[in-house]
Amino acid sequence: MINFVKKVKILRVYLDNNATTMLDPEAYELMVPFLKENYGNPNSLHNWGRNTHKALANAMDQIYDCINANNNDDVVITSCATESNNWVLKGIYFDQILSGKKRRIITSSVEHPAITATCAFLESLGVEISYLPVNNEGIVTPEVLREAISDDVALVSIMWANNETGMIFPIKELAAIAHENGALFHTDAVQAVGKIKINVQDVGVDFLSFSAHKFHGPKGVGGLFIKDSMPLTSLFHGGEHMGGRRSGTLNVAGIVAMAKAMENAVKFLPYELNHISRLRDKLEDALLQIPDVYVVGDRKNRVPNTILASIKGVEGEAMLWDLNQAEIAASTGSACASVTLESNPILEAIGADKELAHTALRLSLSRFNTEEEIDYAIEKIKTATLRLRAISSSYAYSPQTKG
Amino acid sequence: MINFVKKVKILRVYLDNNATTMLDPEAYELMVPFLKENYGNPNSLHNWGRNTHKALANAMDQIYDCINANNNDDVVITSCATESNNWVLKGIYFDQILSGKKRRIITSSVEHPAITATCAFLESLGVEISYLPVNNEGIVTPEVLREAISDDVALVSIMWANNETGMIFPIKELAAIAHENGALFHTDAVQAVGKIKINVQDVGVDFLSFSAHKFHGPKGVGGLFIKDSMPLTSLFHGGEHMGGRRSGTLNVAGIVAMAKAMENAVKFLPYELNHISRLRDKLEDALLQIPDVYVVGDRKNRVPNTILASIKGVEGEAMLWDLNQAEIAASTGSACASVTLESNPILEAIGADKELAHTALRLSLSRFNTEEEIDYAIEKIKTATLRLRAISSSYAYSPQTKG
Repeated sequence: MINFVKKVKILRVYLDNNATTMLDPEAYELMVPFLKENYGNPNSLHNWGRNTHKALANAMDQIYDCINANNNDDVVITSCATESNNWVLKGIYFDQILSGKKRRIITSSVEHPAITATCAFLESLGVEISYLPVNNEGIVTPEVLREAISDDVALVSIMWANNETGMIFPIKELAAIAHENGALFHTDAVQAVGKIKINVQDVGVDFLSFSAHKFHGPKGVGGLFIKDSMPLTSLFHGGEHMGGRRSGTLNVAGIVAMAKAMENAVKFLPYELNHISRLRDKLEDALLQIPDVYVVGDRKNRVPNTILASIKGVEGEAMLWDLNQAEIAASTGSACASVTLESNPILEAIGADKELAHTALRLSLSRFNTEEEIDYAIEKIKTATLRLRAISSSYAYSPQTKG
Repeated sequence: MINFVKKVKILRVYLDNNATTMLDPEAYELMVPFLKENYGNPNSLHNWGRNTHKALANAMDQIYDCINANNNDDVVITSCATESNNWVLKGIYFDQILSGKKRRIITSSVEHPAITATCAFLESLGVEISYLPVNNEGIVTPEVLREAISDDVALVSIMWANNETGMIFPIKELAAIAHENGALFHTDAVQAVGKIKINVQDVGVDFLSFSAHKFHGPKGVGGLFIKDSMPLTSLFHGGEHMGGRRSGTLNVAGIVAMAKAMENAVKFLPYELNHISRLRDKLEDALLQIPDVYVVGDRKNRVPNTILASIKGVEGEAMLWDLNQAEIAASTGSACASVTLESNPILEAIGADKELAHTALRLSLSRFNTEEEIDYAIEKIKTATLRLRAISSSYAYSPQTKG
């Protein structure tokens, strides 16, 4: 008898790693005991507490090492980078602006909503906020900051790498300009940690935010690096956790897993910078062979995993739908705004026309992607592009584009 | 041949459930898929996101049901009750006090540091805070609030049950008094959820804070109930998560586990109110048979799991040490302040003398404790009391107290 049901390997290809990532299996394994028998509160004096306390101290050491923080610095655990970002901006408001020392905060027009919405709130309290424009590569140049800054600025907050384009900002130069003008410098490094080398001493930032779930750690845990343990009014007042800087019972399982995920992300950076970068380039080259496809930003200046493409005549959401049918996860931009189906803000910021901004497709890889997956994705994106352009009212279908 | 190594069952007895709890095994099981294959961002449009989105919606329904929130209300997920408490107090500051509508907040002298430290911060901004005293049972009476309140009060924030004594506050009456005087009412219900029935409609609170890890949920997740979805300035500004009320990628694994833990805590409430209450009473009766032992508060008005005892002549920390040697976890009071080894603040608040305040021993049970464990704890506490009193400089040892 012949078995007519042929077993087909079904590929599921996750290319939305700038939205969130798979938990590193090693981080998961380390996490489990703290979700089971090791449930003590690390502040408790008994053995249950002491066991978790030790694991916590070890995890903190790993995190310090990964970003090259030293003993004079603080790395404070938070629930995510959104908390860290809110903390820095609101802390600076209370410490420097409400007190009348300074009156202005500088940021960019392409920050994550955790920055821009917080800035909008601070504006409603009378804080002056300057939103720096980006160039056509989507980055803030040192010249633009130099022109905008003066000694009334309390803080400059500029992301390290953009969540949508992957473009890397010149953080070291930007931080130096802030410091020359008596301002502190914060970077939202959510999209940089685990993708490029982070050395807080070298770049000279005062504050740096990160979220575990962007580098294969668990959701619900992140951190804020604070240079030289400088004072900053707390966002969470309360008990003596984290040296009194951030109150709340510590999520030991999450912290231990975050530390392992960060350690592995750093360990696999050469792999990311070579192998993943090569797969990204292969995917990008294939996209660029399709006529009327545009990719934002020079790939040499991008984190190794990200492509933000615009496929003329193909609505971003329509493409997502076709790819989803093929079990491929992608995005039209930030997941934080995806439910609203708006045009992609960074494409607007770099001056792309409105039609282009509605055709954004973000593909973000991770070290867990394989070449087979990328080949599969290339095939499916080509097929979807042909199908969707054929039914597009805004795109004149030309059969010779058939790939 | 005779085997001289006799196998002895080693008991480990965790009696520090007001500090943190073991994760409910059923909640753990539900959590695992979201730490492994179901890692999508619930805001993403593709299948990875849709799978987690569905689980999230189901979890939210469970949580609404457990506290009897209705569709007009909001339950917003936070990282813990410390966040929820900070959010309410600071939100009210921005909404009502900075704007000049009201000028005062009323709280009690025995709140958790997440309330008192936040109030101290608001005082530094010029907010008037009234700290209501407690009676000798450790609770705020309606009469005390009635005397203190006036129409300049924006918010009354009083805990539902005290973390150290377990005493239950008359929340329904207190909320009614607040409302009669045009104030909103918040309760930190961290020590009430899972221990007594919570019905937000019945008690009529406007805001209610909870933390999953106090009712056998995971650490790093909690919530804030907001009556009638009333406006409250966000603590986390950013994306559109949680209806724009609290930004940050959702910790799906944590939320799903919290919902299950809450559902089970509610399901096992009759067991808690009968069986655990009986074990608690047995333990308490045994303690009270030791001479010069004092227990705070009438047990009929306490959550069913808590005992705050003072054992004359026995330093709290010395007792913890002896119990820890016997693999029993207890506390001298709040774990959030335990590293500082200060005297117990609630014993001071109810007017106990200073020596008594240094002899506090808090024992807090859970539905996972067994009768065998309680019998073992009774034996060990008696032994430790005899030993420590024998070497105490402040306690005249009398051999007839030998139990």
